[in-house]
Amino acid sequence: MIGHIHRFLIGRPLRSEEAAGERLPKWKALSIFSSDALSSIGYGPEQIVVTLVYSGLLVYGYFGYASLAVVALLAIVTLSYAQVARANPGGGGSYSIAMHNLGERWALIAAAALFADYVLTVAVSISSGTQALVSAFPELIGKEITIDLVILFGILMLVNLRGIRESSNVFVWPTYFFIGGILLMIGTGVYHALTGTAPLIAEQSLVRQQADWAVVILALRAFANGCSSMTGVEAISNGVPMFHKPEVSNAIKTTYLMSALLGIMILGISFLFMHYHLLPLENVTMMSQLAEEVFGRGWGYYYIQITTMLILYLAANTSYNGLPPLLSIMARDSYVPRYLGAKGERLGYSNGILLLSLISGVLIVVFHGNVEHLISLYAIGVFLSFTIAQASLVVKWTREREKGWMSRTAINGFGACITGIVVMIIAVTKFFHGAWLVMVFIPAMIYTFKKIHQHYLNTAEQLYLSPEDFAEHLAAGPVKSLTIVPVSGITKVLAESLRYAQSMGGDVIALHIYTDEQERIKFEEKWKNFHLGIEMHVVYSPYRSIVQPVLSYVSELEMHKSIYDYITIVIPEFEPKKWWHRFLHNQTGWILRTLLILRENVVVSTLPYHFKR
Amino acid sequence: MIGHIHRFLIGRPLRSEEAAGERLPKWKALSIFSSDALSSIGYGPEQIVVTLVYSGLLVYGYFGYASLAVVALLAIVTLSYAQVARANPGGGGSYSIAMHNLGERWALIAAAALFADYVLTVAVSISSGTQALVSAFPELIGKEITIDLVILFGILMLVNLRGIRESSNVFVWPTYFFIGGILLMIGTGVYHALTGTAPLIAEQSLVRQQADWAVVILALRAFANGCSSMTGVEAISNGVPMFHKPEVSNAIKTTYLMSALLGIMILGISFLFMHYHLLPLENVTMMSQLAEEVFGRGWGYYYIQITTMLILYLAANTSYNGLPPLLSIMARDSYVPRYLGAKGERLGYSNGILLLSLISGVLIVVFHGNVEHLISLYAIGVFLSFTIAQASLVVKWTREREKGWMSRTAINGFGACITGIVVMIIAVTKFFHGAWLVMVFIPAMIYTFKKIHQHYLNTAEQLYLSPEDFAEHLAAGPVKSLTIVPVSGITKVLAESLRYAQSMGGDVIALHIYTDEQERIKFEEKWKNFHLGIEMHVVYSPYRSIVQPVLSYVSELEMHKSIYDYITIVIPEFEPKKWWHRFLHNQTGWILRTLLILRENVVVSTLPYHFKR
Repeated sequence: MIGHIHRFLIGRPLRSEEAAGERLPKWKALSIFSSDALSSIGYGPEQIVVTLVYSGLLVYGYFGYASLAVVALLAIVTLSYAQVARANPGGGGSYSIAMHNLGERWALIAAAALFADYVLTVAVSISSGTQALVSAFPELIGKEITIDLVILFGILMLVNLRGIRESSNVFVWPTYFFIGGILLMIGTGVYHALTGTAPLIAEQSLVRQQADWAVVILALRAFANGCSSMTGVEAISNGVPMFHKPEVSNAIKTTYLMSALLGIMILGISFLFMHYHLLPLENVTMMSQLAEEVFGRGWGYYYIQITTMLILYLAANTSYNGLPPLLSIMARDSYVPRYLGAKGERLGYSNGILLLSLISGVLIVVFHGNVEHLISLYAIGVFLSFTIAQASLVVKWTREREKGWMSRTAINGFGACITGIVVMIIAVTKFFHGAWLVMVFIPAMIYTFKKIHQHYLNTAEQLYLSPEDFAEHLAAGPVKSLTIVPVSGITKVLAESLRYAQSMGGDVIALHIYTDEQERIKFEEKWKNFHLGIEMHVVYSPYRSIVQPVLSYVSELEMHKSIYDYITIVIPEFEPKKWWHRFLHNQTGWILRTLLILRENVVVSTLPYHFKR
Repeated sequence: MIGHIHRFLIGRPLRSEEAAGERLPKWKALSIFSSDALSSIGYGPEQIVVTLVYSGLLVYGYFGYASLAVVALLAIVTLSYAQVARANPGGGGSYSIAMHNLGERWALIAAAALFADYVLTVAVSISSGTQALVSAFPELIGKEITIDLVILFGILMLVNLRGIRESSNVFVWPTYFFIGGILLMIGTGVYHALTGTAPLIAEQSLVRQQADWAVVILALRAFANGCSSMTGVEAISNGVPMFHKPEVSNAIKTTYLMSALLGIMILGISFLFMHYHLLPLENVTMMSQLAEEVFGRGWGYYYIQITTMLILYLAANTSYNGLPPLLSIMARDSYVPRYLGAKGERLGYSNGILLLSLISGVLIVVFHGNVEHLISLYAIGVFLSFTIAQASLVVKWTREREKGWMSRTAINGFGACITGIVVMIIAVTKFFHGAWLVMVFIPAMIYTFKKIHQHYLNTAEQLYLSPEDFAEHLAAGPVKSLTIVPVSGITKVLAESLRYAQSMGGDVIALHIYTDEQERIKFEEKWKNFHLGIEMHVVYSPYRSIVQPVLSYVSELEMHKSIYDYITIVIPEFEPKKWWHRFLHNQTGWILRTLLILRENVVVSTLPYHFKR
């Protein structure tokens, strides 16, 4: 039954041979890799306004500058990441680059930052997508978290457990629909603005406060929030091997195209926000307000909202392409549990997919799907990994000194400095808004990674045996073993258990637990009459438990450092004919097994007995 | 940690020798055994009024007659049960009596009826107790179910798991406080009524409808509901062995005293209900209304409410003295799972206590703690067991023909007829109000009891071996065993597993699962270089799972009906140094063990390996 549901939801298992190395044309790659970056305009510009409004600054005096700064930063990061694509034609993100060039410490920092980044991408993108939906359909207000979780567990997780190949075509069109819609909206809006009668940007909104430190901090914080508009630009450089040949040049061209689109959108949207004097409202996104201003509440409006929602959900999906492979690389390097590197039956990294879904789900629930609060945690991880990736390249270029290394070093060095400064701006200006949490989380993650690594090293070391030692170990001859058979009644199962125990070669003891003196005498009498030639020990159980006296008996044998290498306990396991019969037998065998398995030098042997009726 | 909480809540384990056979003086026995019966007036008279009011009959025309009928029935049942005490000085309720005199079928009917009775006593009494509380403190309205469950699981269940002895003195005083309070209230009320100016019973309330069948049915239903006032009168006759000598005469005297008290209370309360023209209200019990009329809302009122609440909760407790011992007797007779007969570490029947609490809790939640709905299920079980107990005695008296058997037969025969008629009245008049549920439940229970009995008989038969067969079985010589050691890497654990396997005497095979051809070739090479002289089989796993190929391999061996009696699989179990290390290893061993344990002829041996760091 469960098997059938599982098969229906996840699909038949795939053989290892079915793993495919599909290549993507540029137009397809653009849509698949850029949903994360482009979807950021769904929340990025609004986050600048939110900061400025809540802090009491008049908005539009600073908003334009913050947007321009974000676009300038985008240009720098794009140039830098074109270099990343060139340096890592094999794919692999900041973690691999840093591991090769800067060493373990920086690689682990990058890994922790990426981990936070991927998880938050899912939480932020799904929450924003749902806000776009709720803005269009206010009757859904209050159901946001339920919708978030259905999208997360009911769709994204399942689709990814089924495997990415089936779904990749699904991802292509929404991105283009979205790009088309947004560009049309910007075009229409700008046309209205230029031909309309209202002033392009009203006078009073340009009023600004006198500069002082508080204003500087707030302006920088607005910029820091705005940086969330460019999360995801690194995606293409991690996916170089999936491009048609020549991979690198195709990937770089696609990166440029994506950044150009993103830049135009940020500028256009920002201009229209200012032109229409939009302000954040509860339950209605600013993008929704803008679409309503431009198109009215008609087909155009709903088109924008639905495509925005779709591309945001798709952006969440990009984390599923990113985190599980990263975890599998780290599992190979022994920094995370090994099973995170195992391919599931559909050839995806199932455990990584489950982990990502689970943590994102917890974040959504804990933060009530509130985008503004999640954003505070978001950008710092992204920019930290930007910085490390570029710093790694600087080291690489200066070490390898290939042709053109100077200009490359300059580009990446400049990029690393700028993004490093952004990290510090975010860390300082948003410290109390959640950045501190990331700054606690990243060291904690690194500590955990190292502990895990140490454990695997210890384990390997303890388990290692050279061929000589191995042969010697086996040549030491058979183990000396004492076999204990717990006895409650004299039955067919006991006969079989004793026969099995006797054929194991060591000594055999029958162990009887009694709770009543009369019963013991009777039982010992009976035992004698069977003439089995097997010694029986009896132990009194004052508290009527069977398990405790057996455990004590075994402990005592262990303590006296007996002459035996192993104490083997034969425990019969009854397999009833009907499932409900199981409830009619006590679980003593199961409990005994569970508690004894943990003992050193105690082997638990489970002997099956199948009832015929 | 869990151990400490457990110890704190339940107390230290008690040794079997600490079991006590405490005897009770009459005054103590009265209070302990009569809380169930006496507390019934907390809901019984009100249930008569409820039926009459809801069915549109003017209340007080019929109310008085219904109450008188209930008291008359009480007298008959009391006389009858005095005989039960005499017939069963060893205690034991309808189940034992019926088993000895009427045979299995009637005993099981009685058992099912008693089961329903005990469970419903808990649900009804707790719900009523909470209603008494809520009537006095209306700010608790809406929290009834929470209070019910806290009383049930937080107090009754825990106190009973600790064992009854500690708590028995706690039970003595509330009963007397309650009796005193109710008698005082009746006295005061009757005095007011006789000396007051208002007419004793107002004219218009005596108006009645013309008799027709609908009216007859409704009047009988009122009577049926009123019968809930006398639930619990059987308690003393089940507890004869706990009285001081001479047990039987003391028990009978106590029964008479209790019934007299109960009769006076029913009559007094009914009279005052009529005098004050009380009607059922939501969230306020009629007892609460009465107490307010008599005493005003002062100390007297709160005294009545609190003692009513306490005695009702105590009444719930009497089921804990009744059902677990009944289940233990039935477990001995193999009609319920055996472990229901096991004494827990505090010498109580812990499993029975847990079962009773669980089912009562479910009833309270499903019926929203609504007394009226629960009552519909209640009385039929009680009167069914009354009837069976007395019918059993009729059989016993006529069979034994001891001195005075004729008068005894007459008393019990009459009692059995009357209570049998009551059963039919309840079954018919309350069929659609829940009696049908009981009439489905009882046959279902009997079917279950029989199925369980059959299973235990089958089991015993299948497991039985005569001494000769037993010796012969063992003499058949050692089992022929094939030992399989799954191999993933060549480690210390593998060396130890192989050594253990080799010393077991049978053939040994190493089994390697591979997912990649290159890896297989390399591994086989390595294996050869170790020169172990142990055969290695390799199996390809196309879906990358380890578990599935091992299972298939074993299945194939089983299918080919190999020459081996048993296939033993040695599975290493790692015990890490720190608890969290456990999460770093996959659970393949555990899964393999769980799935293989169910196979016929497959012995699973778990070999421990303790990491040192």
